[in-house]
Amino acid sequence: MPRPATPLLDKVSSPDDLKVLSVAELEQLAAEVRAEMIDAVSATGGHLGAGLGVVELTVALHAVFDTPRDRLIWDVGHQAYPHKILTGRRADIRTLRQGGGLSGFTRRAESAYDPFGAGHSSTSVSAGLGMAVARDLKGGDNQVIAVIGDGAMSAGMAYEAMNNAGAMDSRLVVILNDNDMSIAPPTGAMSAYLARLVSGPTYLTLREAMKQLAFNLPRGLRQKAQRAEEYARGFLTGGTLFEELGFYYVGPIDGHNLAHLLPVLRNVRNAKDGPVLLHVVTKKGKGYPPAEAAADKYHGVNRFDVVTGAQVKPKANAPTYTQVFGETLVDEGRRDDRIVGITAAMPAGTGLDLFAKAFPDRMFDVGIAEQHAVTFAAGMATEGMKPFCAIYSTFLQRAYDQVVHDVALQNLPVRLPIDRAGFVGADGATHAGAFDTAFLACLPNMVVMAPGDEAELRNMVATAVAYDDGPIAFRYPRGEGVGVDLPARGQPLEIGRGRIVAEGGKVAILSFGTRLAEALKAAEELAAFGLPATVADARFAKPLDRDLIRQLAAHHELLIAVEEGSTGGFGSQVAQALIDDGRFDRGFRFRALTLPDAFVDHDKPERMYAAAGLDAHGIVQAALAALGRNRIELAGVVGK
Amino acid sequence: MPRPATPLLDKVSSPDDLKVLSVAELEQLAAEVRAEMIDAVSATGGHLGAGLGVVELTVALHAVFDTPRDRLIWDVGHQAYPHKILTGRRADIRTLRQGGGLSGFTRRAESAYDPFGAGHSSTSVSAGLGMAVARDLKGGDNQVIAVIGDGAMSAGMAYEAMNNAGAMDSRLVVILNDNDMSIAPPTGAMSAYLARLVSGPTYLTLREAMKQLAFNLPRGLRQKAQRAEEYARGFLTGGTLFEELGFYYVGPIDGHNLAHLLPVLRNVRNAKDGPVLLHVVTKKGKGYPPAEAAADKYHGVNRFDVVTGAQVKPKANAPTYTQVFGETLVDEGRRDDRIVGITAAMPAGTGLDLFAKAFPDRMFDVGIAEQHAVTFAAGMATEGMKPFCAIYSTFLQRAYDQVVHDVALQNLPVRLPIDRAGFVGADGATHAGAFDTAFLACLPNMVVMAPGDEAELRNMVATAVAYDDGPIAFRYPRGEGVGVDLPARGQPLEIGRGRIVAEGGKVAILSFGTRLAEALKAAEELAAFGLPATVADARFAKPLDRDLIRQLAAHHELLIAVEEGSTGGFGSQVAQALIDDGRFDRGFRFRALTLPDAFVDHDKPERMYAAAGLDAHGIVQAALAALGRNRIELAGVVGK
Repeated sequence: MPRPATPLLDKVSSPDDLKVLSVAELEQLAAEVRAEMIDAVSATGGHLGAGLGVVELTVALHAVFDTPRDRLIWDVGHQAYPHKILTGRRADIRTLRQGGGLSGFTRRAESAYDPFGAGHSSTSVSAGLGMAVARDLKGGDNQVIAVIGDGAMSAGMAYEAMNNAGAMDSRLVVILNDNDMSIAPPTGAMSAYLARLVSGPTYLTLREAMKQLAFNLPRGLRQKAQRAEEYARGFLTGGTLFEELGFYYVGPIDGHNLAHLLPVLRNVRNAKDGPVLLHVVTKKGKGYPPAEAAADKYHGVNRFDVVTGAQVKPKANAPTYTQVFGETLVDEGRRDDRIVGITAAMPAGTGLDLFAKAFPDRMFDVGIAEQHAVTFAAGMATEGMKPFCAIYSTFLQRAYDQVVHDVALQNLPVRLPIDRAGFVGADGATHAGAFDTAFLACLPNMVVMAPGDEAELRNMVATAVAYDDGPIAFRYPRGEGVGVDLPARGQPLEIGRGRIVAEGGKVAILSFGTRLAEALKAAEELAAFGLPATVADARFAKPLDRDLIRQLAAHHELLIAVEEGSTGGFGSQVAQALIDDGRFDRGFRFRALTLPDAFVDHDKPERMYAAAGLDAHGIVQAALAALGRNRIELAGVVGK
Repeated sequence: MPRPATPLLDKVSSPDDLKVLSVAELEQLAAEVRAEMIDAVSATGGHLGAGLGVVELTVALHAVFDTPRDRLIWDVGHQAYPHKILTGRRADIRTLRQGGGLSGFTRRAESAYDPFGAGHSSTSVSAGLGMAVARDLKGGDNQVIAVIGDGAMSAGMAYEAMNNAGAMDSRLVVILNDNDMSIAPPTGAMSAYLARLVSGPTYLTLREAMKQLAFNLPRGLRQKAQRAEEYARGFLTGGTLFEELGFYYVGPIDGHNLAHLLPVLRNVRNAKDGPVLLHVVTKKGKGYPPAEAAADKYHGVNRFDVVTGAQVKPKANAPTYTQVFGETLVDEGRRDDRIVGITAAMPAGTGLDLFAKAFPDRMFDVGIAEQHAVTFAAGMATEGMKPFCAIYSTFLQRAYDQVVHDVALQNLPVRLPIDRAGFVGADGATHAGAFDTAFLACLPNMVVMAPGDEAELRNMVATAVAYDDGPIAFRYPRGEGVGVDLPARGQPLEIGRGRIVAEGGKVAILSFGTRLAEALKAAEELAAFGLPATVADARFAKPLDRDLIRQLAAHHELLIAVEEGSTGGFGSQVAQALIDDGRFDRGFRFRALTLPDAFVDHDKPERMYAAAGLDAHGIVQAALAALGRNRIELAGVVGK
């Protein structure tokens, strides 16, 4: 299919070129950016709905503000494709999320127009305030603009930043991009509040918006003289909540109307001191009918047909771990009504949408609020419920203190299903689940599991249901299982007990997690070297199966630990066990294969694991190297 | 000095006994609880001001509610001494914070009246909501009450919980204990907002408070019919912010007036569905003139004289690490005006109060908001500033994702001084700094240091000032240094380079942090066994000094790593280095001494370290055991 005609966009090489365009031309430019973006994402897949919703806002911001001198921060960053198209990255836009290509998020290393990288939500106001305060200290006069979605406003981090910014005099523009939709429909009182703000018959007219801004006097004066007036204004416009938090509130205005956006943004730019919140209402998926019609507004899509909107469905060989988790929990939930599901705004991503459908009263979506999610689960656990608080590995970092202080320290039986463990592919480094084994296995009272395949995941869900003595976590990757038969019902595993999967001789591979399949392949390859390998599935990083480790160490020349995690995790726990036993004193070969000590860029997961030496080939190489076998000999056999 | 006379309190064995008392009697009881608490804390030291502020509130809550059936959650828990006195723990109240005695916080294991333990702030609303929802699912009818301070309201976690609770119909009572003071004077827009609420000529009279509650109809009806009225009411009382967040707001009322508190609490108890916020104004340190007069309201005190309020000053042998950090940063700040200080509501605790005094424009107290603090620092770093974001180890857990995603991933030069690393003594397990080395050393780009003594800390501050290539953290303990001479000015250390402190023979002790002094003592003791020990100070857990480790391994029979942290940290990093080198293949004795895999109760730090085997004696024992030396031989020599 030919690419869309973009005559105006073709002449734009940087945001400077927007400064001379008329409103009508900017409207045309927006249409061309939208067409270009749809075409690009149809080829690459990626985040579509979010970017479509901010095309006009992006054009307006770059037309009004002096980027990159003015710092423009996109919260999360997945809506920044139009921004990338307009800031010198158009030529690479069809490499989005591909290995070696553009990131699917903003990224400092990628462009001077990305002053702060993102991936996780709700960081932009904090970062922006830091930049604003630094500017003040340096005596600069550039602007700082943070664009944040309404969903991201449910995160405590955004509130902390608003609370701090609202008490300071530093100039900061926060643009609330209110599309009433983050990934899932939004929840929470803030969301209901915003809905009320925009529930009037129409958005604010331009005249009304400008009238609001007429009040935008220097902050000191305003604070002294206009408190009563602000209250009155807030009472009329409904913006008191943000006013109470110290922001000058303007809005709501229509985020797709450039004739409104441009003058209002200019006025905001010219306002004096203090923080301003501009409330812009947009429509996720705007301008592309299939996206507008879809329930998730094409949040994240595969490659698709531009005309029909039909997405290319990747051929499924096996159910995903996410599906297996979701289905198994529904099954368990039928037998035990103390099981409840908790998600932080990711019902579909975690597979808990299935649980929500089956047991709507026992499912809680708390919004983007991981900290609250975990302690909410802890509160439930004190009352005898069995909370499954499902959070991606990377987002569980947001709730680490709650896991330590509220769950582990009190030894409360909170279940932590951890999806997206290990590399996640196209979402790259910000979404990789690298550190959870390290940051959980160091905690007293914690049980940490990882299934070797999807059948094991089913067993681990059953284990977590049955285990009521303290917290229990289980981590599993994005993507499909290996295609093993699934047991009709999961069987609870013995806590702290691994299993031998294949019997061998000199070499033992102890796998924690879904590298198990590669470990088995590696064992086959090693057999070709006269090195029949035992393969064991550790199942538990904590408590470790010390008997299994002793047995493997006693009967093999080499033990290799394999995991989809950083140092400090499973391999370190195994090393500590061997050290405690004095096993190394008289000589023993042990290797711990982990994720590399680097943030790894987006690519296909299998390529990422290969580069990390965590595929079969990498395991074989590590084994041969540890045993001092000749590398040439290796090259000859492994290549076949 | 004789104990205060407490005739009424003496007859109270449980909260049930309060139900039959008149208002006048409850007032007397409150006075007696206050006297008892002052007397107890004068002997034990501990948190005084917070408890004094809630004596009447505690009495009123136990008089009105049916604890422990009704769940009463004290946020942070350091204000719960009066609660402990009234809930069967009076006999032990003079063991507060002593080894084997009562915890200085609420604690589930201690009493059925403590349904949720605490230590860190801002968890109570999340936990309470979890309990309320569990109650609803089980069809129960008990009450859930969370008491949270105004300072704790600046934490994002509290907002996440309020935002979620406000959108639900579950009955939950949140009592905002507004004393305009957390540990430091409060900051942030929320605090300013609350100040405006209570800035009227008087608090709400009882009649007005009851009138407010008259509106407390079932939630559904209210939502439909009374929106306009609520707005009007909020406009008058100022409570719109909480109303907008979905809470029914009542207040502010005087938290020291039992004649007001009791009927209002009864009405709140009898209200129908949905979340209620009762805004109670109290005075920290209330009723004890020395506390009321003190700037910090006797937040945390040593033992003191009840009559004069004079605190026993512990004899100082050396400056504390906190002091050395604060003074050194001031010194560095004079030479480099890009240095800025950031604290999350702990200016004095971190020593940054000195920096604030010297450079008020370059010091930022963001409130209890660790997440924001770190990303705010990251924003500053992008603009070329040198932010020192000082957070206790245990509270840095709150900002873990920000350290990973905003700082390490972007490789931004944020400086993380980490106080309270290791055991903290009387504050116990909730405040111990056990996990930071594990959760930081696994992160790419991160530099992780720990000084062996206070002079090294000075050097590490200088190192952090000089190092601009990425994030750098340095951890140091609570309490005094060892008394070494301090260099006039810190010298930047070479990154990733340790040092030999004492030359020996067979045994090498590699210390990370302030166990160094014990390592040196251990070396002396080992000499008595004919085992002259080398002592090295690793300085860096990341990047490791691999040359130093190789050298130690090459020239000693035994290497012992020592740290004040959990497994997965320094010892694990050293083990991985030895593994990578194949050092164990041909046999090598290595031991990694860490904090135990348990949450350790409050006690004196030296006793805690001795029990953990991390004092000189423990190191010697570990060395002898590793070398197979006779334990009897050991007992004879080490005892001397």
